[in-house]
Amino acid sequence: MQRHYDQDLGELKNRLLTMASHAEENVTRAIKALMDRDDDLARRVEGDDSILDRLEMEIDEMAIKLLARAPLASDLRLITVAMKISHDLERVADEATTIARRTREINQEPQLKPYIDIPRMMQMGLEMLREALESFVNRQPDRARTVIPKDKEVDALNKQLHRELSSFMIENPQVLSRCLNLMVISKALERIADHATNIAEEVVYLYEGRDIRHSSKTVAG
Amino acid sequence: MQRHYDQDLGELKNRLLTMASHAEENVTRAIKALMDRDDDLARRVEGDDSILDRLEMEIDEMAIKLLARAPLASDLRLITVAMKISHDLERVADEATTIARRTREINQEPQLKPYIDIPRMMQMGLEMLREALESFVNRQPDRARTVIPKDKEVDALNKQLHRELSSFMIENPQVLSRCLNLMVISKALERIADHATNIAEEVVYLYEGRDIRHSSKTVAG
Repeated sequence: MQRHYDQDLGELKNRLLTMASHAEENVTRAIKALMDRDDDLARRVEGDDSILDRLEMEIDEMAIKLLARAPLASDLRLITVAMKISHDLERVADEATTIARRTREINQEPQLKPYIDIPRMMQMGLEMLREALESFVNRQPDRARTVIPKDKEVDALNKQLHRELSSFMIENPQVLSRCLNLMVISKALERIADHATNIAEEVVYLYEGRDIRHSSKTVAG
Repeated sequence: MQRHYDQDLGELKNRLLTMASHAEENVTRAIKALMDRDDDLARRVEGDDSILDRLEMEIDEMAIKLLARAPLASDLRLITVAMKISHDLERVADEATTIARRTREINQEPQLKPYIDIPRMMQMGLEMLREALESFVNRQPDRARTVIPKDKEVDALNKQLHRELSSFMIENPQVLSRCLNLMVISKALERIADHATNIAEEVVYLYEGRDIRHSSKTVAG
């Protein structure tokens, strides 16, 4: 009985990994659309957001069925964490959509400057997300712990870019809308790192029983 | 047995209402700090954020214990929705903290303009939040449905204010940091309405079984 149930939990984890790879792909493509000034790609990212919405609903349904016949208390906690992770992933995809939309606005004017920090922030955020997911699937709270401090690095990059864009705007009001759109994109990447951190904290809580959520908190704005 | 269990579910709902009133109070005080240019009040809001964090953890613990002995499948769904609502409320309080922080930055310079749309957005968002919570507690999916279209009104106010602040910045770069901070505050209020909408959609789903989440979706940026 427990063995069969464990297989079903494994299926739930697989579904989450599928969802994570879709979310990651959307973020990667949204940033590629920005770098390559590719409106078509941006539009495709916006359209694909519904795939993540559907996956979240499917995972919710699956989780509720599994809750109904969970043999162990620890299974209950694992399933509720899976539901939270799925919600975080859905919101990562929302951030990708935000990036894609702002990219299409940016593409209506010449490129302001070469983008260096933005792809770096993306790589850091996605790396955090992969690590957090892997640590969930493989029951590795120590690995999840290593994700958490990286959030501060992404925050710092976002703040630095924000300052740089602010001075651009002061020097030349003509670049205002491009700067504001880049600020939103940078913030979206910073939020992706926040979601990865949330997931990592949930994983530590799940496997170590210690609640470290909110302890490293960096609030949105 | 079911009767005793129903009492426990009632207690879970009460805890959520308590959490909602704390979140609402934080938002109200953060906007009051902005209107009255009151740094002390802003700092208190930032400090009180930890109350909401603790309430969310307590509700999670309570919910997991209730899941372990849920007699009915419908109870499972109600409990998972309660956990989602608690997470949304915690994030409403995060938005209050964001508003409080930005308020303290704004207060370092003279007031830019009288605030008209901002208190209005706050009232609309908090009203939506109250309605969504009440419809959860009283099993009123129809009432929850009336919340959802209001999200667009708050979005429109945010966009309008964003445009107005953009033209201020173009006319006079000296007001740039005040305008950026007000944009963040306006966006935080818009997100509060998003959370209320999420809750309302969950309530419709819970009591009508139809999944309307994501159907009215307005993505973050």
